[in-house]
Amino acid sequence: MTEKPHPAVADVRRAVRDLLHDVQPDGRIAVAVSGGADSLALAAAAAHVGRKSGLKVTGLIVDHRLQPGSAETSARAAEQLAALGLDDVRVLPVTVDGKGGLEAAARRARYAALRAAADSWVLLGHTRDDQAETVLLGLGRGSGPRSIAGMRPLDHPWGRPLLTIPRATTQAACQALGITPWQDPHNADPRFTRVRLRHEVLPLLDDVLQGGVAAALARTAAQLRDDLAALDDLAVEAHDRASTGDELHVAELTPLPPALRRRVLRTWLTRVGVPELTDAHLRATDGLLSDWHGQRGIALPGGLVARRAHGRLTCTRLNS
Amino acid sequence: MTEKPHPAVADVRRAVRDLLHDVQPDGRIAVAVSGGADSLALAAAAAHVGRKSGLKVTGLIVDHRLQPGSAETSARAAEQLAALGLDDVRVLPVTVDGKGGLEAAARRARYAALRAAADSWVLLGHTRDDQAETVLLGLGRGSGPRSIAGMRPLDHPWGRPLLTIPRATTQAACQALGITPWQDPHNADPRFTRVRLRHEVLPLLDDVLQGGVAAALARTAAQLRDDLAALDDLAVEAHDRASTGDELHVAELTPLPPALRRRVLRTWLTRVGVPELTDAHLRATDGLLSDWHGQRGIALPGGLVARRAHGRLTCTRLNS
Repeated sequence: MTEKPHPAVADVRRAVRDLLHDVQPDGRIAVAVSGGADSLALAAAAAHVGRKSGLKVTGLIVDHRLQPGSAETSARAAEQLAALGLDDVRVLPVTVDGKGGLEAAARRARYAALRAAADSWVLLGHTRDDQAETVLLGLGRGSGPRSIAGMRPLDHPWGRPLLTIPRATTQAACQALGITPWQDPHNADPRFTRVRLRHEVLPLLDDVLQGGVAAALARTAAQLRDDLAALDDLAVEAHDRASTGDELHVAELTPLPPALRRRVLRTWLTRVGVPELTDAHLRATDGLLSDWHGQRGIALPGGLVARRAHGRLTCTRLNS
Repeated sequence: MTEKPHPAVADVRRAVRDLLHDVQPDGRIAVAVSGGADSLALAAAAAHVGRKSGLKVTGLIVDHRLQPGSAETSARAAEQLAALGLDDVRVLPVTVDGKGGLEAAARRARYAALRAAADSWVLLGHTRDDQAETVLLGLGRGSGPRSIAGMRPLDHPWGRPLLTIPRATTQAACQALGITPWQDPHNADPRFTRVRLRHEVLPLLDDVLQGGVAAALARTAAQLRDDLAALDDLAVEAHDRASTGDELHVAELTPLPPALRRRVLRTWLTRVGVPELTDAHLRATDGLLSDWHGQRGIALPGGLVARRAHGRLTCTRLNS
């Protein structure tokens, strides 16, 4: 007779099973573990699901070496993972160079180490609350729908099974399993933008908008990702229909809605070798279609020029 | 010799000219005026542009009759508009019934009165800051990209020329023109969600994300509107290709990306008469395409059933 698991434990396990069902891993999987509640709950669930399904589970612990005692923190997490019954546990020490801000540099070093160490899908413990913070960070950038579409559940080699699970559920799961998570002091440091979004902005938004904001942000981001994927797919199809060699046929492009037409042009300009395409360059090139009055070529980065002639768009070297 | 206008005045006039260029109004236009800085700056610009281009400009002032002295406030705004040289000024008293909350009821009454009074495009003074507040309100609803796409610049009969203009610019324009705007006490009342977004959430977000949040929200919303318009257009085309009478051909639908396929199904189900279609119903119907295993019909609201047979989807009465 099996004891029924705590509801929070069951939720995390179900999320892991659902993701593995989509992924169909090849006999093994890795879990990235910080020692916090999210990743420990995830590791416990992965170990459980792995045992049931004959899947080898490796724990990967990145030691950022940014805080005194980080080696001990990592060693403790390794012990916790061994106690959870993971098949293999590895500590990956990294050097964070600090370029572009500490948060960004630590993230870069972490993902590089995980990518180098893993030869399978790597599960990450990002929760619905992390997703909400990511969407708000993207809102501040203001670089369009893609910046607020959040993290993807599947983005090889990364798998994020907990994107619909609240952080409170991972904490409850750890408690139910008798796991004591590490409290990262960085998670309370208001010098970090993400920390202020978590502790100041989201609670205020929840108060003003009467609750459910993290769930609402995650839901909207998921629908946005579907919409963006559809437009990107359709743009690739339309590009393939409209192109011959390095040229585009105008007659195939003009009937397209503007958002699709601009995506086709972006695909084309990138493929013919325009580096660092800006939105202004893209819109100027689109003017050859949407506002054609016999204008001259559009000068683009990389010494290239986009021109319209004889019903076709070309993009060639300035002096060719 | 013409005196050069203050930069803020010039910005507002340019925004009005740009919108009128797109609209090509038929000899006249109306401006909705609350007496606040946004709508007075807009009315002043419309009067100026109207004089230059031989366009008759009518000012429409809605008296919500919610505050003591509202009739005097309206009369004062009417005088200001007359002084600005508008061709015609009308005060529209309305009754706000309060159903669904005061903000929503006042908005409903206002738009109904404006729509009834106008026989032309009606310019509204919503600024970039209003747009940012609208996007945040939509985020809280969490009902997908459409809920955060904000207000449209053109939505007949409504025209919103100031969606890219900061509120501070309309205030500067009023000051430069010697116009004293009315300060609506509702705009400082923290019982209103929008007021708290304006005075608490947006300043905090600006602090945490280091500025530019209103501009970023407005920019992202504009790109979202383009993306949504493209998907909606493509869905109508795909629906027309896939349908014969009230049936849809499965073979036309299965190659479509999921976000487009679901839009086609939504269009179809709405046209064949399903009332109040929920996301769950839509996804269940989509299962007839994306997860077809010979399942039974999907029961839908209005006593209708969607079924798949012989390569076609049908939607008929339960007992037919």
